[in-house]
Amino acid sequence: MPQVLEAIKEMRIRGAPIIGVASAYALALEAYRNRHIPREQLMRRLRKAGDLLRSSRPTGRDMHRAVERILSKVAATRGDVYDAALLEAQSIANEYERAERQLVKIGQNLIEDGDVILTHCNSGPLATVAWGTGLGILLRAWKSGKRISVIATETRPMLQGARLTAWELKHNGVPFRLITDGMVGYVLARGLVDKILVGADRVWKDGSVANKIGTLTIATLAKEYGIPFYVAAPTSTFDLKGAPSYSVVEMRDSREILEIGRERIAPPGTKCLNPAFDITPANHVTAIVTERGVLRPPFRRSMSRALSRRGHTDHVA
Amino acid sequence: MPQVLEAIKEMRIRGAPIIGVASAYALALEAYRNRHIPREQLMRRLRKAGDLLRSSRPTGRDMHRAVERILSKVAATRGDVYDAALLEAQSIANEYERAERQLVKIGQNLIEDGDVILTHCNSGPLATVAWGTGLGILLRAWKSGKRISVIATETRPMLQGARLTAWELKHNGVPFRLITDGMVGYVLARGLVDKILVGADRVWKDGSVANKIGTLTIATLAKEYGIPFYVAAPTSTFDLKGAPSYSVVEMRDSREILEIGRERIAPPGTKCLNPAFDITPANHVTAIVTERGVLRPPFRRSMSRALSRRGHTDHVA
Repeated sequence: MPQVLEAIKEMRIRGAPIIGVASAYALALEAYRNRHIPREQLMRRLRKAGDLLRSSRPTGRDMHRAVERILSKVAATRGDVYDAALLEAQSIANEYERAERQLVKIGQNLIEDGDVILTHCNSGPLATVAWGTGLGILLRAWKSGKRISVIATETRPMLQGARLTAWELKHNGVPFRLITDGMVGYVLARGLVDKILVGADRVWKDGSVANKIGTLTIATLAKEYGIPFYVAAPTSTFDLKGAPSYSVVEMRDSREILEIGRERIAPPGTKCLNPAFDITPANHVTAIVTERGVLRPPFRRSMSRALSRRGHTDHVA
Repeated sequence: MPQVLEAIKEMRIRGAPIIGVASAYALALEAYRNRHIPREQLMRRLRKAGDLLRSSRPTGRDMHRAVERILSKVAATRGDVYDAALLEAQSIANEYERAERQLVKIGQNLIEDGDVILTHCNSGPLATVAWGTGLGILLRAWKSGKRISVIATETRPMLQGARLTAWELKHNGVPFRLITDGMVGYVLARGLVDKILVGADRVWKDGSVANKIGTLTIATLAKEYGIPFYVAAPTSTFDLKGAPSYSVVEMRDSREILEIGRERIAPPGTKCLNPAFDITPANHVTAIVTERGVLRPPFRRSMSRALSRRGHTDHVA
């Protein structure tokens, strides 16, 4: 558990879906390590571990829901706590894998041969259990023979676009070009982009979206230039209870901006603002791709319809 | 001359005004070095040197105009070519110094006590002959006792915001915070910014502005959030003949994005788009601060009025 917690904090494990699954397994591991202590004490430990996990990344909805699922499962079981936790973690992982596979398939409807698609941060297989979300759609489109190309933003401060998305695109042979985050205005103004596709950390019921810092900037430009702005989000990222609020947005250390590997980029003592996420209002979002279909505005209606269909599992609260 | 040319290409000399002055002195130096060759041959050399300088940075208007001034002065002189070139370079430097001082003074009208001002790239004394333009206004406001604070974008790829603007702000004791370029949406959406102030490399007669890549992204967000977007531009940056066109925008090497000091940020073989500038349409610009007053839309009218006032020198074409 402490190692998983540390890995999440330091962003060695990152990407909303995979953080959710890793947290579920971390709780199962905690149950295993403490399987010989009295049940009441074990439950307290698990609840405490759950709180630590949740406070480590307040934004991503997946993780919070995964922790809630494990805790409620172990509270309800009459059998072995570890068995119950592990079984539930495996269920979560399996559900995620199925949801991703389905989402990536449904997303194919949005991608046409010849498209140039801009993406931000990383929403490929590296961020998820198996298939990716936003970038997963693009990888599958390429594999199925659509001649797309991608413009990837480097995504400062942590450079997930340059380090992870560029790697996944290259690994799969998809043609792409990397840009800095400030170049989005340029590429849209010059007509170089047909559509935009990003992942999400949390989607509220009005359709507003918390995602990696920089997403709001891109979405605002998309609106100005009339470029479709698509969000790929399994329903496990949906937060149907809360309202959009920056209170869930994590502020991270200045060092992430100031130090790029061995290089220090600003004078000593420089202070930064380092919000890890921003919130894109629903009126900037053209559609949300989920494993249950492509949702279009008004999102309250399309979301409740999609969720009320048969087969909806309890991982959406 | 070759050293100055190289320094401009490698951006060891950067900032539209200082590039203009450095180029003027580079031509004077070229005249000095070749002062013993026949006059016709010397003139050919100077014209060739001028072409090399102009092609090294196509965007900045100052440099093109400075080169034209030197070349036309030496062509017209009956005396020593070197003397004529040096005298004209000194005139240009003096005019710039006076224009900057006046621009910085006039810009004080836009800054109020308590303002939080966002700036991009570097438009301080380091970019100019003496007083700076956009950042110069902020430094003077602080020194005159206005309790402002600044949000500086790091300005990828070359990090002029993190390296130069942060240094100048720190050196002068102005409170500031550094952000990545993708965070502009966040800070505007959260109401953290009162106004935006940037420099310019070229201003066309309709009021559209070529400036460091990322400026268009910021201006578009400013429009969306109703935040005043000010450009500080001495009239030496005005291009009254041409129309806004990306043909003047320099595309630079991918390595500027891929390599940050000793760190390589993306997989080998990654290709980038690296435009050095973008063009902000006039309808995104609230006002242009010049040494001849604050120009407001419609810019064609305010510009021609300002330029027709007594005292207008020939450095605006």
